[in-house]
Amino acid sequence: MPSRQFHYCPICATPLQKKIVLGEERLACPSCGWVHYEDPKVAAGVLVIEAEKALLVKRVMEPFTGLWSIPAGFVNAFEDPARAAERECHEETGLIAQVDHLYLMETGREHPRGADILLIYSASIRGGELHAADDAADAGWFSLDALPPLAFASTQRLFTQIPH
Amino acid sequence: MPSRQFHYCPICATPLQKKIVLGEERLACPSCGWVHYEDPKVAAGVLVIEAEKALLVKRVMEPFTGLWSIPAGFVNAFEDPARAAERECHEETGLIAQVDHLYLMETGREHPRGADILLIYSASIRGGELHAADDAADAGWFSLDALPPLAFASTQRLFTQIPH
Repeated sequence: MPSRQFHYCPICATPLQKKIVLGEERLACPSCGWVHYEDPKVAAGVLVIEAEKALLVKRVMEPFTGLWSIPAGFVNAFEDPARAAERECHEETGLIAQVDHLYLMETGREHPRGADILLIYSASIRGGELHAADDAADAGWFSLDALPPLAFASTQRLFTQIPH
Repeated sequence: MPSRQFHYCPICATPLQKKIVLGEERLACPSCGWVHYEDPKVAAGVLVIEAEKALLVKRVMEPFTGLWSIPAGFVNAFEDPARAAERECHEETGLIAQVDHLYLMETGREHPRGADILLIYSASIRGGELHAADDAADAGWFSLDALPPLAFASTQRLFTQIPH
Protein backbone atom coordinates (compact mmCIF):
# COMPACT_ATOMS: atom_id res chain seq x y z
CA MET A 1 0.00 0.00 0.00
CA PRO A 2 1.36 3.46 -0.76
CA SER A 3 2.40 5.67 2.14
CA ARG A 4 0.32 8.78 2.70
CA GLN A 5 1.94 11.85 4.19
CA PHE A 6 1.55 11.92 7.97
CA HIS A 7 0.35 15.19 9.52
CA TYR A 8 -0.54 14.28 13.12
CA CYS A 9 1.11 12.22 15.83
CA PRO A 10 -0.65 8.81 15.88
CA ILE A 11 0.05 8.56 19.63
CA CYS A 12 -1.27 11.95 20.83
CA ALA A 13 -2.71 13.77 17.73
CA THR A 14 -0.30 16.74 17.97
CA PRO A 15 0.72 18.18 14.56
CA LEU A 16 4.05 16.67 13.51
CA GLN A 17 7.16 18.70 12.73
CA LYS A 18 10.20 17.92 10.60
CA LYS A 19 13.32 17.16 12.63
CA ILE A 20 16.73 15.62 11.98
CA VAL A 21 16.80 12.31 13.88
CA LEU A 22 19.64 9.79 13.51
CA GLY A 23 21.01 11.69 10.54
CA GLU A 24 17.77 11.85 8.54
CA GLU A 25 14.96 14.38 8.31
CA ARG A 26 11.92 12.69 9.82
CA LEU A 27 8.52 13.74 11.11
CA ALA A 28 8.51 13.96 14.90
CA CYS A 29 6.02 14.91 17.61
CA PRO A 30 7.02 18.02 19.58
CA SER A 31 4.70 16.90 22.41
CA CYS A 32 5.31 13.19 23.10
CA GLY A 33 8.54 12.67 21.14
CA TRP A 34 7.21 10.02 18.74
CA VAL A 35 9.32 9.80 15.56
CA HIS A 36 8.09 8.49 12.23
CA TYR A 37 10.67 5.88 11.28
CA GLU A 38 9.28 4.70 7.99
CA ASP A 39 10.07 1.05 7.39
CA PRO A 40 10.69 -0.54 4.03
CA LYS A 41 7.81 -2.41 2.43
CA VAL A 42 8.62 -6.10 2.08
CA ALA A 43 6.82 -8.47 -0.25
CA ALA A 44 7.17 -12.24 -0.36
CA GLY A 45 6.05 -14.71 -2.98
CA VAL A 46 6.36 -18.31 -4.06
CA LEU A 47 7.98 -19.68 -7.17
CA VAL A 48 6.24 -23.00 -7.75
CA ILE A 49 7.20 -25.05 -10.78
CA GLU A 50 5.79 -28.53 -11.28
CA ALA A 51 6.14 -30.59 -14.47
CA GLU A 52 7.67 -27.58 -16.27
CA LYS A 53 4.67 -25.47 -15.39
CA ALA A 54 4.65 -22.37 -13.18
CA LEU A 55 1.84 -21.38 -10.81
CA LEU A 56 0.70 -17.85 -11.66
CA VAL A 57 -2.10 -15.50 -10.63
CA LYS A 58 -3.87 -12.81 -12.64
CA ARG A 59 -3.82 -9.46 -10.87
CA VAL A 60 -6.98 -7.70 -9.70
CA MET A 61 -5.12 -4.73 -8.25
CA GLU A 62 -3.33 -1.81 -9.87
CA PRO A 63 -0.75 -1.61 -11.27
CA PHE A 64 -0.68 -4.21 -14.03
CA THR A 65 -4.32 -5.27 -13.53
CA GLY A 66 -5.03 -8.29 -15.72
CA LEU A 67 -1.39 -9.30 -16.08
CA TRP A 68 0.13 -12.33 -14.36
CA SER A 69 2.61 -12.73 -11.55
CA ILE A 70 3.69 -15.29 -8.98
CA PRO A 71 1.48 -15.51 -5.87
CA ALA A 72 2.89 -12.80 -3.62
CA GLY A 73 1.97 -10.00 -1.25
CA PHE A 74 3.12 -7.75 1.53
CA VAL A 75 4.72 -9.15 4.66
CA ASN A 76 3.19 -7.91 7.92
CA ALA A 77 5.18 -6.74 10.93
CA PHE A 78 6.27 -9.69 13.08
CA GLU A 79 5.50 -12.14 10.26
CA ASP A 80 8.06 -14.63 8.98
CA PRO A 81 8.38 -13.79 5.27
CA ALA A 82 8.39 -17.49 4.34
CA ARG A 83 5.02 -17.89 6.11
CA ALA A 84 3.79 -14.70 4.41
CA ALA A 85 4.66 -16.21 1.02
CA GLU A 86 2.76 -19.42 1.88
CA ARG A 87 -0.17 -17.37 3.20
CA GLU A 88 -0.39 -15.28 0.04
CA CYS A 89 -0.28 -18.42 -2.10
CA HIS A 90 -3.17 -19.91 -0.15
CA GLU A 91 -5.19 -16.69 -0.23
CA GLU A 92 -4.74 -16.16 -3.94
CA THR A 93 -4.79 -19.73 -5.33
CA GLY A 94 -6.38 -21.97 -2.69
CA LEU A 95 -3.25 -24.12 -2.80
CA ILE A 96 -1.16 -24.95 0.26
CA ALA A 97 2.47 -24.22 -0.53
CA GLN A 98 5.50 -25.25 1.48
CA VAL A 99 8.54 -23.01 1.17
CA ASP A 100 11.81 -24.79 0.49
CA HIS A 101 14.43 -22.04 0.30
CA LEU A 102 14.95 -18.38 -0.56
CA TYR A 103 15.36 -18.41 -4.32
CA LEU A 104 15.98 -14.73 -5.00
CA MET A 105 15.88 -11.36 -3.30
CA GLU A 106 15.13 -8.29 -5.42
CA THR A 107 15.48 -4.76 -4.09
CA GLY A 108 14.17 -1.44 -5.30
CA ARG A 109 10.59 -0.17 -5.52
CA GLU A 110 9.49 -0.86 -9.10
CA HIS A 111 6.38 1.33 -8.73
CA PRO A 112 5.02 3.65 -6.01
CA ARG A 113 2.78 0.96 -4.52
CA GLY A 114 5.51 -1.67 -4.70
CA ALA A 115 7.91 -3.21 -2.24
CA ASP A 116 11.45 -2.11 -1.42
CA ILE A 117 12.42 -5.74 -0.87
CA LEU A 118 10.92 -8.73 -2.69
CA LEU A 119 11.70 -12.19 -1.34
CA ILE A 120 10.95 -15.02 -3.76
CA TYR A 121 10.89 -18.48 -2.22
CA SER A 122 11.11 -21.75 -4.06
CA ALA A 123 8.10 -23.79 -2.91
CA SER A 124 6.05 -26.88 -3.67
CA ILE A 125 2.33 -27.61 -3.33
CA ARG A 126 1.21 -29.88 -0.50
CA GLY A 127 -2.55 -29.66 -0.79
CA GLY A 128 -5.54 -27.44 -1.35
CA GLU A 129 -7.70 -26.93 -4.42
CA LEU A 130 -6.96 -24.43 -7.15
CA HIS A 131 -9.36 -21.52 -7.12
CA ALA A 132 -8.49 -17.86 -7.51
CA ALA A 133 -9.50 -15.58 -4.64
CA ASP A 134 -8.46 -12.47 -2.69
CA ASP A 135 -6.62 -10.14 -5.06
CA ALA A 136 -6.29 -12.72 -7.85
CA ALA A 137 -8.85 -12.76 -10.68
CA ASP A 138 -7.58 -16.09 -11.94
CA ALA A 139 -4.91 -18.64 -11.07
CA GLY A 140 -3.38 -21.48 -13.02
CA TRP A 141 -0.42 -23.46 -14.25
CA PHE A 142 1.46 -22.26 -17.31
CA SER A 143 4.13 -23.98 -19.35
CA LEU A 144 7.46 -22.17 -19.03
CA ASP A 145 7.47 -22.06 -22.84
CA ALA A 146 4.09 -20.32 -23.05
CA LEU A 147 3.78 -17.89 -20.18
CA PRO A 148 0.95 -15.34 -20.21
CA PRO A 149 1.72 -11.56 -20.20
CA LEU A 150 3.68 -10.99 -17.00
CA ALA A 151 3.28 -8.09 -14.58
CA PHE A 152 6.38 -6.45 -13.11
CA ALA A 153 9.89 -6.32 -14.53
CA SER A 154 10.93 -8.43 -11.52
CA THR A 155 8.60 -11.28 -12.55
CA GLN A 156 9.86 -11.06 -16.11
CA ARG A 157 13.50 -11.21 -14.95
CA LEU A 158 12.68 -14.14 -12.69
CA PHE A 159 11.36 -16.29 -15.53
CA THR A 160 14.12 -15.23 -17.91
CA GLN A 161 16.60 -16.69 -15.42
CA ILE A 162 14.87 -20.06 -15.03
CA PRO A 163 16.36 -22.74 -17.29
CA HIS A 164 13.77 -24.65 -19.32
CA MET B 1 12.76 1.15 17.22
CA PRO B 2 9.82 -0.40 19.05
CA SER B 3 6.34 0.30 17.76
CA ARG B 4 4.05 2.31 20.02
CA GLN B 5 0.31 1.74 19.91
CA PHE B 6 -1.39 4.14 17.52
CA HIS B 7 -4.50 5.95 18.80
CA TYR B 8 -5.13 8.68 16.20
CA CYS B 9 -5.15 8.82 12.42
CA PRO B 10 -1.82 10.36 11.32
CA ILE B 11 -3.55 11.83 8.25
CA CYS B 12 -6.56 13.55 9.88
CA ALA B 13 -6.23 13.03 13.70
CA THR B 14 -9.54 11.12 14.05
CA PRO B 15 -9.44 8.38 16.75
CA LEU B 16 -8.67 5.02 15.11
CA GLN B 17 -10.92 1.98 15.32
CA LYS B 18 -10.15 -1.73 14.96
CA LYS B 19 -11.37 -3.21 11.69
CA ILE B 20 -10.78 -6.40 9.71
CA VAL B 21 -8.91 -5.36 6.54
CA LEU B 22 -7.46 -7.92 4.10
CA GLY B 23 -8.07 -10.71 6.59
CA GLU B 24 -6.32 -9.09 9.57
CA GLU B 25 -7.51 -6.91 12.41
CA ARG B 26 -5.92 -3.52 11.82
CA LEU B 27 -6.40 0.02 13.09
CA ALA B 28 -8.34 2.09 10.58
CA CYS B 29 -9.66 5.64 10.37
CA PRO B 30 -13.48 5.87 10.23
CA SER B 31 -13.17 9.35 8.74
CA CYS B 32 -10.56 9.27 5.93
CA GLY B 33 -10.16 5.50 5.52
CA TRP B 34 -6.44 5.33 6.35
CA VAL B 35 -5.41 1.83 7.48
CA HIS B 36 -2.40 1.05 9.63
CA TYR B 37 -0.51 -1.58 7.67
CA GLU B 38 2.42 -2.22 9.96
CA ASP B 39 5.51 -3.14 7.99
CA PRO B 40 8.23 -5.50 9.14
CA LYS B 41 11.38 -3.96 10.57
CA VAL B 42 14.38 -4.76 8.40
CA ALA B 43 18.00 -4.52 9.53
CA ALA B 44 21.08 -4.81 7.37
CA GLY B 45 24.70 -5.29 8.34
CA VAL B 46 28.11 -6.07 6.94
CA LEU B 47 30.23 -9.13 7.56
CA VAL B 48 33.77 -7.94 6.95
CA ILE B 49 36.63 -10.39 7.46
CA GLU B 50 40.17 -9.43 6.53
CA ALA B 51 43.28 -11.44 7.42
CA GLU B 52 41.16 -13.76 9.61
CA LYS B 53 39.87 -10.81 11.58
CA ALA B 54 36.27 -9.62 11.79
CA LEU B 55 35.15 -6.00 12.01
CA LEU B 56 32.95 -5.56 15.07
CA VAL B 57 31.33 -2.70 16.98
CA LYS B 58 30.56 -2.36 20.67
CA ARG B 59 26.92 -1.50 21.27
CA VAL B 60 25.85 1.76 22.92
CA MET B 61 22.15 0.96 22.71
CA GLU B 62 19.94 -1.45 24.62
CA PRO B 63 19.68 -4.40 24.47
CA PHE B 64 23.13 -5.95 24.94
CA THR B 65 24.84 -2.61 25.65
CA GLY B 66 28.60 -3.17 25.84
CA LEU B 67 28.52 -6.39 23.83
CA TRP B 68 29.78 -6.67 20.27
CA SER B 69 28.08 -7.17 16.93
CA ILE B 70 28.68 -6.62 13.25
CA PRO B 71 28.06 -3.05 12.01
CA ALA B 72 24.33 -3.03 11.30
CA GLY B 73 21.15 -1.01 11.66
CA PHE B 74 17.64 -0.45 10.44
CA VAL B 75 16.88 -0.04 6.76
CA ASN B 76 14.77 3.01 5.90
CA ALA B 77 11.80 3.00 3.54
CA PHE B 78 12.93 3.33 -0.10
CA GLU B 79 16.52 2.47 0.87
CA ASP B 80 18.43 -0.35 -0.82
CA PRO B 81 19.37 -2.68 2.05
CA ALA B 82 22.89 -3.13 0.65
CA ARG B 83 23.38 0.64 0.78
CA ALA B 84 21.89 0.68 4.30
CA ALA B 85 24.48 -1.90 5.39
CA GLU B 86 27.31 0.21 3.92
CA ARG B 87 25.85 3.36 5.50
CA GLU B 88 25.65 1.77 8.94
CA CYS B 89 29.23 0.53 8.62
CA HIS B 90 30.41 4.03 7.80
CA GLU B 91 28.37 5.64 10.58
CA GLU B 92 29.55 3.20 13.23
CA THR B 93 33.17 2.53 12.24
CA GLY B 94 34.28 5.37 9.92
CA LEU B 95 35.19 2.72 7.34
CA ILE B 96 33.82 2.66 3.79
CA ALA B 97 32.52 -0.80 3.05
CA GLN B 98 31.55 -2.21 -0.31
CA VAL B 99 28.94 -4.95 -0.29
CA ASP B 100 29.77 -8.02 -2.32
CA HIS B 101 26.78 -10.35 -1.90
CA LEU B 102 23.98 -11.32 0.46
CA TYR B 103 25.65 -13.73 2.86
CA LEU B 104 22.73 -14.67 5.08
CA MET B 105 19.14 -13.71 5.82
CA GLU B 106 17.81 -14.29 9.32
CA THR B 107 14.14 -13.91 10.18
CA GLY B 108 12.33 -13.55 13.49
CA ARG B 109 12.41 -10.69 15.99
CA GLU B 110 14.98 -11.73 18.60
CA HIS B 111 13.91 -8.99 21.01
CA PRO B 112 11.10 -6.38 21.06
CA ARG B 113 13.31 -3.65 19.59
CA GLY B 114 14.80 -5.99 16.99
CA ALA B 115 14.22 -6.60 13.31
CA ASP B 116 11.87 -9.11 11.69
CA ILE B 117 14.34 -9.57 8.85
CA LEU B 118 18.13 -9.28 9.16
CA LEU B 119 20.16 -9.13 5.95
CA ILE B 120 23.87 -9.79 6.41
CA TYR B 121 26.05 -8.84 3.46
CA SER B 122 29.57 -9.99 2.82
CA ALA B 123 31.62 -6.82 2.31
CA SER B 124 35.16 -5.49 2.07
CA ILE B 125 36.70 -2.20 3.16
CA ARG B 126 37.59 0.34 0.47
CA GLY B 127 38.63 3.32 2.57
CA GLY B 128 37.95 5.47 5.59
CA GLU B 129 39.61 5.56 8.99
CA LEU B 130 38.59 3.41 11.91
CA HIS B 131 36.85 5.40 14.63
CA ALA B 132 33.72 4.39 16.50
CA ALA B 133 30.77 6.79 16.25
CA ASP B 134 26.96 6.95 16.15
CA ASP B 135 25.59 4.07 18.22
CA ALA B 136 28.96 2.28 18.54
CA ALA B 137 31.07 2.85 21.67
CA ASP B 138 34.06 1.15 20.11
CA ALA B 139 34.99 -0.54 16.85
CA GLY B 140 37.81 -2.86 15.92
CA TRP B 141 39.17 -5.96 14.28
CA PHE B 142 39.05 -9.25 16.18
CA SER B 143 40.65 -12.57 15.37
CA LEU B 144 37.99 -15.19 14.62
CA ASP B 145 39.69 -17.31 17.30
CA ALA B 146 39.33 -14.64 19.97
CA LEU B 147 36.06 -12.81 19.49
CA PRO B 148 34.79 -10.52 22.26
CA PRO B 149 31.43 -11.21 23.97
CA LEU B 150 28.86 -11.10 21.16
CA ALA B 151 25.43 -9.48 21.30
CA PHE B 152 22.45 -11.29 19.73
CA ALA B 153 21.99 -15.01 19.14
CA SER B 154 22.02 -14.16 15.41
CA THR B 155 25.57 -12.74 15.65
CA GLN B 156 26.68 -15.77 17.64
CA ARG B 157 25.19 -18.16 15.06
CA LEU B 158 26.82 -16.18 12.25
CA PHE B 159 30.32 -16.61 13.64
CA THR B 160 29.75 -20.24 14.58
CA GLN B 161 29.07 -20.91 10.89
CA ILE B 162 32.20 -19.20 9.56
CA PRO B 163 35.05 -21.63 8.95
CA HIS B 164 38.39 -20.59 10.48
